[in-house]
Amino acid sequence: MKNRLCIVALSGGLDSCVTAALANEEFNLALLHINYGQRTERRELQAFNDIADFYKTDKKLIVNLKYFSEIGSSSLTDRNMEVSKFELNSDKIPNSYVPFRNANILSICTSWAESINCQDIFIGAVYEDSSGYPDCRPDFFSVFNKVIELGTKPNSQIKIHTPIINMSKKQIIQKGIELNAPIHLTWSCYKDEVIACGECDSCALRLRGFQELNIEDPIRYKIIHKFI
Amino acid sequence: MKNRLCIVALSGGLDSCVTAALANEEFNLALLHINYGQRTERRELQAFNDIADFYKTDKKLIVNLKYFSEIGSSSLTDRNMEVSKFELNSDKIPNSYVPFRNANILSICTSWAESINCQDIFIGAVYEDSSGYPDCRPDFFSVFNKVIELGTKPNSQIKIHTPIINMSKKQIIQKGIELNAPIHLTWSCYKDEVIACGECDSCALRLRGFQELNIEDPIRYKIIHKFI
Repeated sequence: MKNRLCIVALSGGLDSCVTAALANEEFNLALLHINYGQRTERRELQAFNDIADFYKTDKKLIVNLKYFSEIGSSSLTDRNMEVSKFELNSDKIPNSYVPFRNANILSICTSWAESINCQDIFIGAVYEDSSGYPDCRPDFFSVFNKVIELGTKPNSQIKIHTPIINMSKKQIIQKGIELNAPIHLTWSCYKDEVIACGECDSCALRLRGFQELNIEDPIRYKIIHKFI
Repeated sequence: MKNRLCIVALSGGLDSCVTAALANEEFNLALLHINYGQRTERRELQAFNDIADFYKTDKKLIVNLKYFSEIGSSSLTDRNMEVSKFELNSDKIPNSYVPFRNANILSICTSWAESINCQDIFIGAVYEDSSGYPDCRPDFFSVFNKVIELGTKPNSQIKIHTPIINMSKKQIIQKGIELNAPIHLTWSCYKDEVIACGECDSCALRLRGFQELNIEDPIRYKIIHKFI
């Protein structure tokens, strides 16, 4: 019987799903989902609700952050930009980068946590085997924990956990399978909502992980390149 | 002729108005306003728009954060709680505290700044002569600057300025008068939208500032206690 509650930022993608599976080992789950005007908003919300049902939690907070599409500058939220295709070994920040998105998400998680006296926040950020977004690097989360310590009431003791930050996509999938995470319910594609495109950064990194494990991804793709 | 742009978080209250006046000395203004389900939301938005007109800027971003009233726990956003009256020399955090609100506001400012290549953000937080909210202390802003440095693109060089953080309310009013800030257009009351209550923390701190200067506050109050 678990008696502690944690908040998980759950986009509905593979990484956040496996993070929820890890959190679920020790905690009851309260799940936060953000709609920020991204192209695949509806499909991600469906994945979020499906995963919440899988974990039988009704503690859900769904937040609409329309301003991300108003300020633009990301191919995820600006319909005039095209979602770039995956470039192997590129050190550029892809145009899917949404400015400072994780700080917005963590701030909401922390406000919610402080309000319900919850001390643990999980986020499925990945740095090593990822797109190189600045707000995914480990130091960013360490310093954010310091901001939380200073900016909340004394004794609130809220802490962010990033359990998969140094895992490769392959390791994340392995961990998900080991914990019986509902990977078949997740949605990762940045571009399409019906069948995953197979070509955007997010699809490519995911497909490569499955290919490295020599396992078939349970979701459908329009195109399946060989990434290894 | 000013050629640099800054973002000012402008609630429409006295402190943020004087902060805008200070920023206006050096920068063109882009103004951010947050509706977060607070009791006086409509009146504050009117003050925001009035102040924006005064400074002749049309660069405005108005953001609705409904989740603050969903998560509750503050008398500003939870209609079942009563806004507490001002207590002189109390070291308690008042029930008007909205959990981690400033981190949410700063995250939005930073996302906007990164998106429009702006490097300067102003926020009218006050610590010395204030209600003692944890997310108003100077260290919180210093560490948030570190989070910005780590969590945005290299060379974005965005920095938060808190020019009135160590001023007393009296000094803030003096500065506002000196800079011809439109104090008559501001709204500070936490409780009412038509005539300021004169009794909540925010009214009381403001009234005390004017009384210390022996100047009449240009806005109307229901009750005017003597606070000095």
